[in-house]
Amino acid sequence: MAFVSSLSSISKLADDVLSGNRRALAKAITLVESDQPGHRGDAETMLDKIVAHTGNARRIGISGAPGVGKSTFIDAFGMALVEQGQKLAVLAVDPSSRLGGSILGDKTRMEQLSLHPGAYVRPSPSAGSLGGVARRTRQVMMLVEAAGFDTVIVETVGVGQSETAVADMTDIFLLLLNPGGGDDLQGIKRGIMELADLVIVNKADGELEGAARRAQNDYRGALSLMRPKHIGWQPPVLKVSALTGRGLDAVIGQIGRFFDHLNESEALERLRADQRVAWFRDELAQQVWEHLHQVPELSHMLATETDKVRAGKRAPTAAGHALVKQIFDRS
Amino acid sequence: MAFVSSLSSISKLADDVLSGNRRALAKAITLVESDQPGHRGDAETMLDKIVAHTGNARRIGISGAPGVGKSTFIDAFGMALVEQGQKLAVLAVDPSSRLGGSILGDKTRMEQLSLHPGAYVRPSPSAGSLGGVARRTRQVMMLVEAAGFDTVIVETVGVGQSETAVADMTDIFLLLLNPGGGDDLQGIKRGIMELADLVIVNKADGELEGAARRAQNDYRGALSLMRPKHIGWQPPVLKVSALTGRGLDAVIGQIGRFFDHLNESEALERLRADQRVAWFRDELAQQVWEHLHQVPELSHMLATETDKVRAGKRAPTAAGHALVKQIFDRS
Repeated sequence: MAFVSSLSSISKLADDVLSGNRRALAKAITLVESDQPGHRGDAETMLDKIVAHTGNARRIGISGAPGVGKSTFIDAFGMALVEQGQKLAVLAVDPSSRLGGSILGDKTRMEQLSLHPGAYVRPSPSAGSLGGVARRTRQVMMLVEAAGFDTVIVETVGVGQSETAVADMTDIFLLLLNPGGGDDLQGIKRGIMELADLVIVNKADGELEGAARRAQNDYRGALSLMRPKHIGWQPPVLKVSALTGRGLDAVIGQIGRFFDHLNESEALERLRADQRVAWFRDELAQQVWEHLHQVPELSHMLATETDKVRAGKRAPTAAGHALVKQIFDRS
Repeated sequence: MAFVSSLSSISKLADDVLSGNRRALAKAITLVESDQPGHRGDAETMLDKIVAHTGNARRIGISGAPGVGKSTFIDAFGMALVEQGQKLAVLAVDPSSRLGGSILGDKTRMEQLSLHPGAYVRPSPSAGSLGGVARRTRQVMMLVEAAGFDTVIVETVGVGQSETAVADMTDIFLLLLNPGGGDDLQGIKRGIMELADLVIVNKADGELEGAARRAQNDYRGALSLMRPKHIGWQPPVLKVSALTGRGLDAVIGQIGRFFDHLNESEALERLRADQRVAWFRDELAQQVWEHLHQVPELSHMLATETDKVRAGKRAPTAAGHALVKQIFDRS
């Protein structure tokens, strides 16, 4: 694919993204998701041009195990938002997704939302390391914010460490759960519960209504034992039916309350600033690591030292020192 | 404190450590725990000299919340090991420990063990970041192994992420729990349970005997829902009384079974090799980060870029790129 080749065309692309042009947005996203080294530099230049126009959206992370009705929930919840006039982008962090299947999947999964002009549904960057997928998704989030979207949903599949990555790039983290009480609680991957700012028991309809109410009580009990993530915010447990739409208003209301709470204490601005610095350190570590592989003398040394360390013939400290010396003293 | 000043005296210290000299060991440990930049280089040289003689001990991680009787357990368990003729070193990872109090605490906490000639009890390196404390402890582990200790216990206090750090530097991870059933289960910090290779319900004596048995059943139930860390190893749940010593034989037996299991599948050698490579990457990242702060032009640039990123005026990607360019292109 032919991309931008000069500084002026990168500026043009950035301007088009800022004006809300959807084709430019798609092109910019493809650029930041590209693996080609030449594209990387262009992507960095472009992101730096739009960075001052990012950060104006509410960033909502959503996680839930397969089978919890996450797509149906996001479809219904997202429709409620866009019908209020909000511009909504839906992104995904799914390191296990495969090219093709996932794109088709995302479009058909959210039937109503993907057709609505106020929404933009983007599949997860294709399979890769969690770190790589998370970096790309953060960059795509910057782009959709620059394009004027005022709400960004980042969903994740609840596998491995992806929830932590999503919680670290969003303002509020919603955890979707199935009806089912005490026993079910132990089936939740440990560590997820304490990331949640809002817990939602889905499928509270028909014959599961009673089970959903019991689950709500159980989860409230479990959460009351845990230290809250934000001072003064005890994560509410709501039950909804994504199928009938009942309870979605309460979810939207609690999200509003959450942002009011963070804004009152200026916690949101601090959270965002801390996230930006953490992303920078992450970028720096990743880029140093990539660079090590690109400079022939360093990549050779890295491979040799790694082999020695793996075999137990070289202390990790000494190997690290040798490489650091080589990196910083080349001149 | 005057330390080694020449290559020959570092070699001498390494030789003395390898011969099992306790005073040399203490001196070497103080050297690797030292923060002075000059000592760092000496420590690296020494560790590289002894690395080929490390890795021969069984590395046992032990965690448990305050009040679970961890010191009493390690004292009794450790005595059982040394009375079998084993040479045992006890290290600790406690990023919250304060200089002085902790040293005194560790010595008096394990009354019998700290007086036994077959045991060496070393307190946690003084307070610092978890990453820093963990690095020092890994290095001390290398030293005690080089000095001929054939079992190393690394204990942690069960605060923050320290269990993960200890699990990543040991072969087997023991989790100590209080008697008390279902409700208590939810009080355990999430994520710890899945690190455990062996779960031990302590205080199974006197009037807590019945509660300990119920807890044992509950924990067995909870563990059966979780994916085991090692293929073919379902973590046993044992009850012991550190006070009377009952059940300690079973603990030692299960630890033996665990190592047999890992050795049969050559999993132990793979685990160790993977750990060594992970330590190397960790060392490299840490040393690069430290070096960035030491080179004036780089530390200045790092501060400036961090401020811009924090304020949202600079994209993390671009800031990372600028620094990487500065690091690798200086010449």
